[in-house]
Amino acid sequence: MDDPAFALRDATIAIVGIGLMGGSLALALRAQNACRAILGITRSPATRDQALARGAVDEASGHLSLAASADVIVLATPVRTIMRQMAEIGAVARAGAVIMDLGSTKQAIVRAMEQLPARLEPIGAHPMCGKETFGFHAADAALFQNAPFVLTPLARTSPATLALAQTLALTVGARPIVLDPARHDRIVGAISHLPFALAATLMATAADLAQNDDLLFTLAAGGFRDTSRLAASDTTMMLDILLTNSNHVANLMRTYAARLNQFADSIEGKDESALRTMLEHAARSRRELYV
Amino acid sequence: MDDPAFALRDATIAIVGIGLMGGSLALALRAQNACRAILGITRSPATRDQALARGAVDEASGHLSLAASADVIVLATPVRTIMRQMAEIGAVARAGAVIMDLGSTKQAIVRAMEQLPARLEPIGAHPMCGKETFGFHAADAALFQNAPFVLTPLARTSPATLALAQTLALTVGARPIVLDPARHDRIVGAISHLPFALAATLMATAADLAQNDDLLFTLAAGGFRDTSRLAASDTTMMLDILLTNSNHVANLMRTYAARLNQFADSIEGKDESALRTMLEHAARSRRELYV
Repeated sequence: MDDPAFALRDATIAIVGIGLMGGSLALALRAQNACRAILGITRSPATRDQALARGAVDEASGHLSLAASADVIVLATPVRTIMRQMAEIGAVARAGAVIMDLGSTKQAIVRAMEQLPARLEPIGAHPMCGKETFGFHAADAALFQNAPFVLTPLARTSPATLALAQTLALTVGARPIVLDPARHDRIVGAISHLPFALAATLMATAADLAQNDDLLFTLAAGGFRDTSRLAASDTTMMLDILLTNSNHVANLMRTYAARLNQFADSIEGKDESALRTMLEHAARSRRELYV
Repeated sequence: MDDPAFALRDATIAIVGIGLMGGSLALALRAQNACRAILGITRSPATRDQALARGAVDEASGHLSLAASADVIVLATPVRTIMRQMAEIGAVARAGAVIMDLGSTKQAIVRAMEQLPARLEPIGAHPMCGKETFGFHAADAALFQNAPFVLTPLARTSPATLALAQTLALTVGARPIVLDPARHDRIVGAISHLPFALAATLMATAADLAQNDDLLFTLAAGGFRDTSRLAASDTTMMLDILLTNSNHVANLMRTYAARLNQFADSIEGKDESALRTMLEHAARSRRELYV
């Protein structure tokens, strides 16, 4: 690793958006006493009060201008809000400041980062530790423990900035992984955005059926609870994710739907050997993955 | 409730199949000291030894003939095994014996029960507390706590037998619910069999994609883990369920696939208002269901 232009422990970090991710980052940095100061920026006065009361931030504001003095600015709002905030951040940030985000899609954000003034040091990031809960009250200093923390440097990102980002990820207990934005979006489409789409569609399907049978949810057990869990995710956050990874996600959903129809064919056709092969393959893969 | 012909506490109960469900039933009855004796029947000598060692059963055998002296015979094998065992149980069981099963589909089993000799007292049952784990080593006396315990009496089932089955369900901590077999199969198709089919298809889809990207599973977080959990279920058990509830399940899968394709259309068409309406509806339904 190259030496960063400044050390994390000497840095003032501004976090924009103090929900589950931003709030957890503040708490995790605080728990490690990892930097000089933490500034929190959010429109919600109640969240500002809570973040100050829990000691997550040293100072809080509803205005991006608070980030002017920061060495590192972390954008932790929904993806399309991050993209909208990029120009204002570019105008506000001091020369040499590292601009990082925590958004769940990376191609669209990195494209927006490419427009930042040359004096700034952008790098994309995505810690893989979402929950279906959200908001600062759900924030947790331990959220990043052992989580993969994807970093997507731009062509212009300096080795020093990449090193700082890696240090930050390691400091909060995560495992930094450097990745190309396109590959990131393709992978999370399959292992994060598709599962969300499936859970939301399951919940919508079951809610419709429940209108004709009031016992339906009474009988729902652990299997339904787990498979539908992601449907409770924050709508604005997920909408932004789906719309900024639309090609990958829509293609995956169509491939999945075709496979599900084939599976239904095998059930209707009582094709026991095809079914057994498919189910055993899926069961073996799942058991190997989570031993 | 009518008085049963015999009290549960005086009964000898034979359990055929001592896996997760049968083993848990034995342990739960034992923990409550609920009956006179528990007999375990399984082909596996290792499971017989374990069940005897844990005190789950008083006596164990590999042969259905052990059930000849039982007042209650509980079939806890996979659905199609239950159907195959029904004739032999009919030949072996003593007059007045209650024949109950714990299978996850009820129409096919109840039809098989209708063929039992008139001297026997059949009733279908399905405790809604499956896990993706299986086998006697996963058995747990607390498995049925607060779980809905569906009972599907036949036209010929006596009030006394229904009362005994309700007592048994209450004794192991479950909530008995009397239901028509067709309605049961329609409901569990939606809240149990469809979620399994979705999880298996997700796991198969992701495993295929992982062959071209070795980082795919490295980045999988809690969302993927929960949504794919049911894919690890026992293949023989699930195959029997799908094939004995094939019409309901296949129809639900096709409806679901059509809905998923519509969802993909909305994403590709950037139809933000349709997406927001659908996602908010799903999120609200999920949050109301599990508060």
